[in-house]
Amino acid sequence: MKGNDSISTLYEHGTLASLMAGNMAGTIALGDLLKHGSTGIGTFDGLDGEVIILDGEVYQAVSSGQVNHVTNMQAKMPFASVHQPADLQKLTINDANFALLNGDFVGQHELKNVFAALRLKGEFNHVKVRIAPKQEEPYPSLLEVAQGQPTFVCDHVQGTIIGYYAPAIFGSVTAAGWHLHFISDDREFAGHLLEFNAAKLTGDLQVFDTLEQHLPVADEAFRKGEVDMATLRDSIAKSEGNAD
Amino acid sequence: MKGNDSISTLYEHGTLASLMAGNMAGTIALGDLLKHGSTGIGTFDGLDGEVIILDGEVYQAVSSGQVNHVTNMQAKMPFASVHQPADLQKLTINDANFALLNGDFVGQHELKNVFAALRLKGEFNHVKVRIAPKQEEPYPSLLEVAQGQPTFVCDHVQGTIIGYYAPAIFGSVTAAGWHLHFISDDREFAGHLLEFNAAKLTGDLQVFDTLEQHLPVADEAFRKGEVDMATLRDSIAKSEGNAD
Repeated sequence: MKGNDSISTLYEHGTLASLMAGNMAGTIALGDLLKHGSTGIGTFDGLDGEVIILDGEVYQAVSSGQVNHVTNMQAKMPFASVHQPADLQKLTINDANFALLNGDFVGQHELKNVFAALRLKGEFNHVKVRIAPKQEEPYPSLLEVAQGQPTFVCDHVQGTIIGYYAPAIFGSVTAAGWHLHFISDDREFAGHLLEFNAAKLTGDLQVFDTLEQHLPVADEAFRKGEVDMATLRDSIAKSEGNAD
Repeated sequence: MKGNDSISTLYEHGTLASLMAGNMAGTIALGDLLKHGSTGIGTFDGLDGEVIILDGEVYQAVSSGQVNHVTNMQAKMPFASVHQPADLQKLTINDANFALLNGDFVGQHELKNVFAALRLKGEFNHVKVRIAPKQEEPYPSLLEVAQGQPTFVCDHVQGTIIGYYAPAIFGSVTAAGWHLHFISDDREFAGHLLEFNAAKLTGDLQVFDTLEQHLPVADEAFRKGEVDMATLRDSIAKSEGNAD
């Protein structure tokens, strides 16, 4: 598959390590983020929900389960990833679920050491998502938030998976492996993807040669934040892990 | 110091994790690297020496201790970092050594969560460097190479320190903390800095808001490389560590 790899950039603002340290205040305006890509995922100020960005349209699933169409370009985000779709490798996947994505798919496409974007559309037999509830200052750690997040299930739903694969060595910076969000075609069901299965999905894969990692260097909390390296990877795995 | 932070980019090609896995073949041409910055550090194909790039001039210290002025823009590098100096914070440091840089300096400039470039010039009382010897295929791991590297000492020498600070969470990707090289003003003594002390150095600090991490996604060895996450950080610390 490598012959078709696009040479392109994944833009990421903020790090999971900083969220883990409790820096959940927004540090980039949505309008500034969208200059770097039309498609992606993220969360809003205070870890307020799960964000899905498709073709420049921004959706936010909040912890009640409601999905908002966000048009306020001043809204701030502490952590988000976007890219410009280009040179896509077209995909058709049968009997799709996380076990397949985590296993054979990564091997076949030689993803383990690269960043890649995945977009899959179709009818899902079953989808389970979680949605981060908005936090107030003083912020807890991401791990504390992750332990009390509402989950939602939807069966027989048309929708789209969008998100990224990151190499294990970047697992302190972003979520290693797959970090995927889901949104239904009717834009009424969305969140951070925990489980799914579908008989047939179509979509595309984009391998990046560059990670453009942007850090909020002017943010006092970011500069002073204490990252506990000893527990970081374990905490991220517990907070961001997907079920197989 | 944050009010003076420049908003700029550190460009890095390759990762320490990939070197650690034994992928030491060059994957970017020097000429391509220099498009991203005039100043930096790195190594050549086969881990051949320690590279110092100052104002577009490229020097390579090889393991005999000799320093070459490199003008072959086709020469390939497996790992290198460069930047374009801009909006520099001017520095004067008295009684400079690694203990100072690792301690008070990082605290005063709030560097622990950011990438930064450091350039310091002056008369050094003492400098100790190491120089990686060129490896042949099949390549060993970086750790094996690091255990048998020649070191060189020079006292009372005029020269320049150039290199980078990286946050701990990027310690699987690049060298966490300081990764500094040294070159004498007469361009006859250079290498990876292990020890130094100087009564007074002057120079500049540049804080980056962006890491542009470029990966050799078309390189088969990179795509297939096996990274041992369990031992990676420890191996990098042993290979890249600086003496205090």
